[in-house]
Amino acid sequence: MNQRIRINDWERLDDLQCKGLKIIQDTRGFCFGVDAVLLANFTEVKKGNSVIDLGTGTGIIPILIAGKTEASHIVGIEIQEHMAEMASRSILLNGIQEKVKIFHEDIKNCIKLFGPSSFDVVTTNPPYMNCGGGLINPNDFKAISRHEIKCTLEDVIQISSKILKPGGKFNMVHRPERLVDIIYLMRLYKLEPKRIRFVHPSPYKKANLVLIEGAKNGNPQLKMMPPLYVYNEHGEYSEEIHKIYKS
Amino acid sequence: MNQRIRINDWERLDDLQCKGLKIIQDTRGFCFGVDAVLLANFTEVKKGNSVIDLGTGTGIIPILIAGKTEASHIVGIEIQEHMAEMASRSILLNGIQEKVKIFHEDIKNCIKLFGPSSFDVVTTNPPYMNCGGGLINPNDFKAISRHEIKCTLEDVIQISSKILKPGGKFNMVHRPERLVDIIYLMRLYKLEPKRIRFVHPSPYKKANLVLIEGAKNGNPQLKMMPPLYVYNEHGEYSEEIHKIYKS
Repeated sequence: MNQRIRINDWERLDDLQCKGLKIIQDTRGFCFGVDAVLLANFTEVKKGNSVIDLGTGTGIIPILIAGKTEASHIVGIEIQEHMAEMASRSILLNGIQEKVKIFHEDIKNCIKLFGPSSFDVVTTNPPYMNCGGGLINPNDFKAISRHEIKCTLEDVIQISSKILKPGGKFNMVHRPERLVDIIYLMRLYKLEPKRIRFVHPSPYKKANLVLIEGAKNGNPQLKMMPPLYVYNEHGEYSEEIHKIYKS
Repeated sequence: MNQRIRINDWERLDDLQCKGLKIIQDTRGFCFGVDAVLLANFTEVKKGNSVIDLGTGTGIIPILIAGKTEASHIVGIEIQEHMAEMASRSILLNGIQEKVKIFHEDIKNCIKLFGPSSFDVVTTNPPYMNCGGGLINPNDFKAISRHEIKCTLEDVIQISSKILKPGGKFNMVHRPERLVDIIYLMRLYKLEPKRIRFVHPSPYKKANLVLIEGAKNGNPQLKMMPPLYVYNEHGEYSEEIHKIYKS
């Protein structure tokens, strides 16, 4: 069956080294990074949970969660048509189309599409950069993945809060420089932060990613997790990164 | 002159190993810890700045700031009378009474005492623990230093915001588990977080302290600093801790 899935000339097929999963990526555009892999690993999904990934891009997070967990169904939302179409082919390629659906949609339409309080788990790896300057070409599809052109951090948090069931879990990866906005908005929209983990390139370097979990209508009780180092002090991949990429 | 300062039987005199500074501590009560030393080191004080330390305890932070910076004057506020009196003797012992004044006061009276927008810098190492349970003896003076009996985190942040000049800097050390409350309240009371530094016992261990700086009426722009490790991976004091204790 896999033979019948189209791979365009400007695309490549990557092996995710996880249960035989594969992914199609556009060599001209935004490819998934370590942040998405770390988020998929950070997210706790219980058997039978429904999961929605806001701004799914290549579909990497739904594919990894389908491989690693016993989620009942997983939805990925992507505003860029060619990305959504490519992600759908990756789903077919992996034969997980019964479990994972990709929607070419603006995340702002999610509540209309699925109804409020309709998911157990949200994952999101949103654009990291504020739209401050005028240097961004809004037709550039790498820019849409990286900058808050189509949705702001506040949109993502507000929509996540609406779409989660009470007690449902919000999971995000972002830049530590946005930590104040993230925490302030999560509490404001009743996604109380429960777990935080900072990711550092190596010990003694400052964190360049933050993983955060919030609970819809949760009580204040934060668990600070140990730091995650991508490389150890000898410049080799850390043990934990080895484990994550092998699992 | 130092010979004339009283040291009671239940007290001890410690050498701060910083420019000959000394401190009196009550062996029965709360002694200063690494957190106060790290906060004094984290706080940026410019020449001529006025500084107020809310909940000064032994007076450790005013004493170290007097030794390390060119602050014009430093005020320490302490609600426990015997602590305030002991801190005053430490100030005399160091001969810095022209620069540092200790007030036996509730921090809630600070605005009445000094007026709003009257300081350039606030430092505070407030009680870390929420008053949740009923196990605390409110007459226990160790408890007053450790638990939010006399003032809450919200009191500290609200008072700091009022007493700081616009652009003035708030500096606090606290537990990472309170990070959400800290960040949410700081933004709410217009003390925009500007620098965050997590302190870990050693690499690979989770942070057990957080140092945070906010600017009164500041713009959102957070600088995440590299982690500070008390011990290195070989179980020895880290280079940075050596430097802090030597400076």
